[in-house]
Amino acid sequence: MTRSKKSRQGVSVDDLVDRARKGDPRAVARLISLVEDASPLLREVSAGLAPYAGNAQIVGITGPPGVGKSTSTSALVATLRKTGQRVGVLAVDPSSPFTGGALLGDRVRMQDHATDPEVYIRSMATRGHLGGLAWATPQALRVLDAAGCDVILVETVGVGQSEIAIAGQADSTLVLMSPGMGDGIQAAKAGILEIGDIYVINKADREGANQVRREIRTMLSLAERDEGDWRPPIVQTVAIKSEGIDEVVEKLSDHRAWLSESGELQRRRVRRARDEIETIAVTSLRSRFADLHGDERLDELAEAVITGQSDPYAAADQLVASM
Amino acid sequence: MTRSKKSRQGVSVDDLVDRARKGDPRAVARLISLVEDASPLLREVSAGLAPYAGNAQIVGITGPPGVGKSTSTSALVATLRKTGQRVGVLAVDPSSPFTGGALLGDRVRMQDHATDPEVYIRSMATRGHLGGLAWATPQALRVLDAAGCDVILVETVGVGQSEIAIAGQADSTLVLMSPGMGDGIQAAKAGILEIGDIYVINKADREGANQVRREIRTMLSLAERDEGDWRPPIVQTVAIKSEGIDEVVEKLSDHRAWLSESGELQRRRVRRARDEIETIAVTSLRSRFADLHGDERLDELAEAVITGQSDPYAAADQLVASM
Repeated sequence: MTRSKKSRQGVSVDDLVDRARKGDPRAVARLISLVEDASPLLREVSAGLAPYAGNAQIVGITGPPGVGKSTSTSALVATLRKTGQRVGVLAVDPSSPFTGGALLGDRVRMQDHATDPEVYIRSMATRGHLGGLAWATPQALRVLDAAGCDVILVETVGVGQSEIAIAGQADSTLVLMSPGMGDGIQAAKAGILEIGDIYVINKADREGANQVRREIRTMLSLAERDEGDWRPPIVQTVAIKSEGIDEVVEKLSDHRAWLSESGELQRRRVRRARDEIETIAVTSLRSRFADLHGDERLDELAEAVITGQSDPYAAADQLVASM
Repeated sequence: MTRSKKSRQGVSVDDLVDRARKGDPRAVARLISLVEDASPLLREVSAGLAPYAGNAQIVGITGPPGVGKSTSTSALVATLRKTGQRVGVLAVDPSSPFTGGALLGDRVRMQDHATDPEVYIRSMATRGHLGGLAWATPQALRVLDAAGCDVILVETVGVGQSEIAIAGQADSTLVLMSPGMGDGIQAAKAGILEIGDIYVINKADREGANQVRREIRTMLSLAERDEGDWRPPIVQTVAIKSEGIDEVVEKLSDHRAWLSESGELQRRRVRRARDEIETIAVTSLRSRFADLHGDERLDELAEAVITGQSDPYAAADQLVASM
């Protein structure tokens, strides 16, 4: 196959995939870098990983800034490791297009796990465009999956659409809340209240935890559910002391079982694959645009729109018609 | 032209545009609804508005939840109205795909302006997909622009990519911060610190305002700027008491003047028009996919990907090749 093809550094993608599958952390890191940098080898990486992915439970971890996502992620890693599971952590920073890199402020405490060979930790910046997250994350997840991770924790930085995009790529989504984050409607506004498979009230030793619990319960009671649907549990934790984390792991395991039995796992994975294929197809069409027309043609059309001679729909039609 | 074409309700788009230009708020509302609902008349609306847009200053208002965006927007409306300007307000809620509507919690105080015929206020939900914001917002802005608004305030709900997307569509971006929002890195994580043209420290009568000011200054001092570049000012406000809002309006006016003189206004508008044309072109290609292949073909490809028989790049190639 492509085993003879060598990357610029003289390593073939198939060798990297082989080594990643055997648990070599440097091979895992290299593969994720190839994905993140949109390397010319991306297609080859994608093809090389395809046969080996599909085993990991992908867990999205979302919640407003300050709620303790990193601490909770770290505590979850520790607890999952105790049960002998191989764990991947992908910290995605989709909202930092202007700095070009993930902020490392509170990644520091993940250092506890940095020397554990059964834990892969990776920060990823998705470099600014809305498509970035949709495009790079599934490939990076596939690397960790092929490397034999049983659970992959995906933590996003920031709230809003990026959170929802991550939830769309996860098998199970943890929504973290904490007391004293301002009134409930502010949290609801972030759009993250509806997407949880498991709700975690972190910092539950603080005043107001019961209030948060009531708000989540009220919100959940409004959702329509059929017989056999998953009923999202609410777990209270103090992640900094690892309190309640066992229960979160247990609920994740329950959710995984439910996903398989109900057929929802298959449905979610088909939906994700569809989205991914479409995203790649559209990206490839966009570059075909650029190849066909160059930047000048688009500039001309843009100029016509801003002077009112044309409108964006007519301009788009002209662009599409010439393909 | 299209004057003879009637919408289902028996009103022609050209009539609506005429009435909107004369300041009829119902016509403005109807046009925005047509845009928001992706009405079949969307193209006609777009064409009808094209000649009349391009005069308004589009001001994006961003900041973390709880910072006082709605209060500040309301105070800005009041101050702008005192100078006789016609004002549009577009509250975009891109992060609420699951509820299908904008949350109205703190819209209530905008009621102060609800009876002012020179103020248009509109909440928009963009219904869940990442492209939603990019697609509907520019058209809604064009409606308000054609209706003669001098300034359009665009306020988003939620932070993260949606904020950045809004900043990409604005002429001037206000970034709101306030004391006591947690440590600076949390705010920076939201990715909104880099995108401001004007920084507003709201709730500046609270302890910690100077700390926030120092943090913003430090961050701004790190940015590379050339001679003639805009230097973002930092304004302190207490929006609930309208304190400092005059100064924000003044800085907005300064920024508008700088945009025109420096040529940056033209550059930003060309960039926006390009993005808009591309977004529409890609959307139209997506529906061409659907027409050509139906859902079944994409399901087959997705199935091949999740079973490891294919990979997403190969699947996307198959999709594109058949166009």
